Amino acid sequence: MADHDAGTESQLKRLRRIEGQIRGLQKMVEEDKYCIDVLTQVSAATRALKSFSLELLEQHMASCVVDAAAKGGAEADRKIREASEAIARLVRS
Amino acid sequence: MADHDAGTESQLKRLRRIEGQIRGLQKMVEEDKYCIDVLTQVSAATRALKSFSLELLEQHMASCVVDAAAKGGAEADRKIREASEAIARLVRS
Amino acid sequence: MADHDAGTESQLKRLRRIEGQIRGLQKMVEEDKYCIDVLTQVSAATRALKSFSLELLEQHMASCVVDAAAKGGAEADRKIREASEAIARLVRS
Amino acid sequence: MADHDAGTESQLKRLRRIEGQIRGLQKMVEEDKYCIDVLTQVSAATRALKSFSLELLEQHMASCVVDAAAKGGAEADRKIREASEAIARLVRS
Repeated sequence: MADHDAGTESQLKRLRRIEGQIRGLQKMVEEDKYCIDVLTQVSAATRALKSFSLELLEQHMASCVVDAAAKGGAEADRKIREASEAIARLVRS
Repeated sequence: MADHDAGTESQLKRLRRIEGQIRGLQKMVEEDKYCIDVLTQVSAATRALKSFSLELLEQHMASCVVDAAAKGGAEADRKIREASEAIARLVRS
Repeated sequence: MADHDAGTESQLKRLRRIEGQIRGLQKMVEEDKYCIDVLTQVSAATRALKSFSLELLEQHMASCVVDAAAKGGAEADRKIREASEAIARLVRS
Repeated sequence: MADHDAGTESQLKRLRRIEGQIRGLQKMVEEDKYCIDVLTQVSAATRALKSFSLELLEQHMASCVVDAAAKGGAEADRKIREASEAIARLVRS
């Protein structure tokens, strides 16, 4: 197994927990659990995915965007536009 | 393996596809893929989860809520309130 | 001025408050207020609009949808589908 | 009337249009329009508010965040964190 830095390891841990939530949902559906209870768990998984993406986005801005901004010029503009588009997709997802 | 009706089977298929998306995200993080590409995939998984919950909700309203409404009385009120709360959680997730 | 029932009056009150929030936003932009503070107020107005729509939706389900469901048949199906589509627009807005 | 730069004028125009949408909603409620039609208009106003905030956020990142990042240090960190918190409020609103 590869060695990962602390940030990567923390991201993987969060994604594995979300994978567990999705598998839990499959079990609920298989066992014919009450619809509303399934929906509550779907909302929880959706919130977890959003938290994950917000953390990822903050790290991206604190590293890539800040680095590009420090250099300035066209690359800075491009990174800001790219981050803005990712935020728009996130807000609308 | 248990026999499931067509609705359950279709729900399980969707959830397995979402589980695949989450595992794909783990692979991207492990391979240190570019942040913005990871975020694009997170948005896709979030949209898939929302579509799943909207389908589930429609089925719930077409069966449980309609049945309770047909009977009327306190049970109908309770089911409407319960569905409304699930919708609110969904809208805010 | 027209006489409205209590439900309509309460809806109008909420919408007038949201209109006030939008006008407050215009004032902030005119006075060149700090971006982040403007964004905080936009988030508050968005949340208020969502709360308004969730209340409206619950009232709609408790009246129109329940009535149609009590009658059953094609009209019940149509109302459930119509409500589901409105919920989907709301969740994706 | 004050002189505003082009960016401010464009923001004010968008906010005035949203104010018009909210007033249109009041008229619909007063005229007792069909619930689902009101909800469709609420979704449109919500989407307009989100677009407005995404534009505002992009401008903020292209100016304040880039300026702070170019200077670096604690101020850059503070601006990134502040922007990330605004994005989180937006995503969750």
